[in-house]
Amino acid sequence: MTTRPVYLIGAGMMAFGKHKETPLSELAAGAAAAALADAGFNGDEIGAAYVGTQWGGSMVGQRALKHIGLLGMPIANVENACSSSSTALHLAQMAVAAGMHDAILVIGADKLTHIAGPLPRHPDDFDGSLGVSPPAVYATRARRYMFEYGATEEDLASVCVKNRKHAVDNDKALFQAAVSMDEVLGSRLVADPLTLLQCCARADGAAAVIVGSEAWARKAAQSPVRILASQLCSGLYRSDFRDMTSPEITVRCAQKAYAQAGLQPSDIHFAEVHDAFSIAEMLYYEALGFCGAGQAKHLLREGATTIGGRLPVNPSGGLIAKGHPPGATGIAQVVEAVEQLRGHAGKRQVKGAKNALTHCTGGGVSGLDHGACTIHILTSD
Amino acid sequence: MTTRPVYLIGAGMMAFGKHKETPLSELAAGAAAAALADAGFNGDEIGAAYVGTQWGGSMVGQRALKHIGLLGMPIANVENACSSSSTALHLAQMAVAAGMHDAILVIGADKLTHIAGPLPRHPDDFDGSLGVSPPAVYATRARRYMFEYGATEEDLASVCVKNRKHAVDNDKALFQAAVSMDEVLGSRLVADPLTLLQCCARADGAAAVIVGSEAWARKAAQSPVRILASQLCSGLYRSDFRDMTSPEITVRCAQKAYAQAGLQPSDIHFAEVHDAFSIAEMLYYEALGFCGAGQAKHLLREGATTIGGRLPVNPSGGLIAKGHPPGATGIAQVVEAVEQLRGHAGKRQVKGAKNALTHCTGGGVSGLDHGACTIHILTSD
Repeated sequence: MTTRPVYLIGAGMMAFGKHKETPLSELAAGAAAAALADAGFNGDEIGAAYVGTQWGGSMVGQRALKHIGLLGMPIANVENACSSSSTALHLAQMAVAAGMHDAILVIGADKLTHIAGPLPRHPDDFDGSLGVSPPAVYATRARRYMFEYGATEEDLASVCVKNRKHAVDNDKALFQAAVSMDEVLGSRLVADPLTLLQCCARADGAAAVIVGSEAWARKAAQSPVRILASQLCSGLYRSDFRDMTSPEITVRCAQKAYAQAGLQPSDIHFAEVHDAFSIAEMLYYEALGFCGAGQAKHLLREGATTIGGRLPVNPSGGLIAKGHPPGATGIAQVVEAVEQLRGHAGKRQVKGAKNALTHCTGGGVSGLDHGACTIHILTSD
Repeated sequence: MTTRPVYLIGAGMMAFGKHKETPLSELAAGAAAAALADAGFNGDEIGAAYVGTQWGGSMVGQRALKHIGLLGMPIANVENACSSSSTALHLAQMAVAAGMHDAILVIGADKLTHIAGPLPRHPDDFDGSLGVSPPAVYATRARRYMFEYGATEEDLASVCVKNRKHAVDNDKALFQAAVSMDEVLGSRLVADPLTLLQCCARADGAAAVIVGSEAWARKAAQSPVRILASQLCSGLYRSDFRDMTSPEITVRCAQKAYAQAGLQPSDIHFAEVHDAFSIAEMLYYEALGFCGAGQAKHLLREGATTIGGRLPVNPSGGLIAKGHPPGATGIAQVVEAVEQLRGHAGKRQVKGAKNALTHCTGGGVSGLDHGACTIHILTSD
């Protein structure tokens, strides 16, 4: 069956940080209002809303949209851990591509300061019971990767130095101060070899985009960005497929996304990737095809993934500098990509960027394997 | 744009009840396996899974499908309170109608015995802080309805007597024993005039259906049921539109559903409606157009909505007899409708039924108004 092109025609977000006094619904409403204002829309254009949240509880979308008077429409709340709102985007682009809706508001929101005590855990979450928490998983992968490929602690730390440097010019980031290599390496050890500054920080935040048809894109105030690919995969959990240095779900999802877009990794001009930990960004360079196995350290050492290099990664500052409200992160990456592709990213602009990739993955259900990976490829061409 | 017909080609569920020792993911996996077995499928046919849960926490779909080896596919977890899994069905039928997927597994699951203590509440949930809990809201509506239309406490109780009678022959129901009018009226008062037996019970449970294209429907083991309409609405929250005796969101959603199906209320042969409280079922008779304002008592007194009557409502026993795991309820209603439309409902069969309506509504964000109403109209014709 035929489908039609799908565009991102509005984008906005609330600054990531600590918003203890602001209900999650107000954060989400603020992001939605920003996306509508960005598009020059008053809300009447919107046919449905898909809202991603991991920890927000019940009916986050309805609570949010009530604040801004967007009432009556179909609203679906979507949960996929770190990929919650990027999954909502995936569903929205399908609905628009199919002609089921002409414009859908997609919001991502989470508020981690509101969750008192430890995060809730499933009774069948054996990994968690064994202490196999995300920092421990990534620390183990880091040690293996260093052993296999000769990457150093400085290589790992350089991811953090780079991303914190990018975020100096991002007023939506939790951390807007640069850090030195010594500060990263000297910060408290969380899980050897990962120091505190190499782990993303919990945060509160919300981000929103409007996904729409070509007709609505033409009516919007900003130049449209087209979604060339939108892929969502779950894990394979295959015991014969557990190379700790290669995140299989991202490799597979990326292959599908490049095929859908008709592009190669070399066609991507910048990317927002899921740097929950410094090592994660390095693994994803390779899983996304930006370099070969073990070559991530060279991209970092050459500055290729710094703004000004040939393939900037996380010009927004990534999770490490922006902070990580899981439900909001996927759409926040897309907001950054839209601003960059429009040429509106100010001092952190990736010059001449036409094609962008955003990558979100999470929901570790079984150690190394993630439950949900999403990749979007976007273009201003 | 053209869309294609969408069918329900497999259906199954776990008994609703207390499953303290069984993780939610296993309940959900059991329902999914039952739906696959019902269709005669081995799982290779399934292109995606959409999983509704309200209280299940993060990654319920991924945890469930891992148990039955359905790996790698796109999985989205969906939350819309009582309409969580019916919203997942709404999204799934759109994706199949549009040709994005050929067969999607839709699961609903919740486990309320696992939630220790009171259910979590939003900081902006003013109604809850004021004691405006669901029983209080429905008790108030009941009193107003009785005042306006002369319905009696016996009329209210007769909903419960009817639904408990229906469930005597439903081995998936939490309560499989009939109750008398005296037992209903004599049970503990929860919120005047609603007695305990007129309030649905918390339960654990899961239900699943397979939604697919005509090509897959032809390959399935069972005769297919077609989805004629699938509608999802959110609340309007308009202060000038608050007739306590008329649930506006259901009225509006029903109008859209009938228009989509090209049917009238008089074309419906039986319905599964959201009888969270006895008064709710009466309000929904009217909101769904089964009778005029204030006329619900006559349908009940005449036995029209009892199996054997002209328009049986809740032949499964409804929420009142089956129990109510919110995330599972929407798909459990559809499982009942599928069994009835196939003529496989045994002693509780609605004879000659061709067209069915399922109605799920919930997520009270502001007193009377619900956040998500879903209506599906199904046919075996």
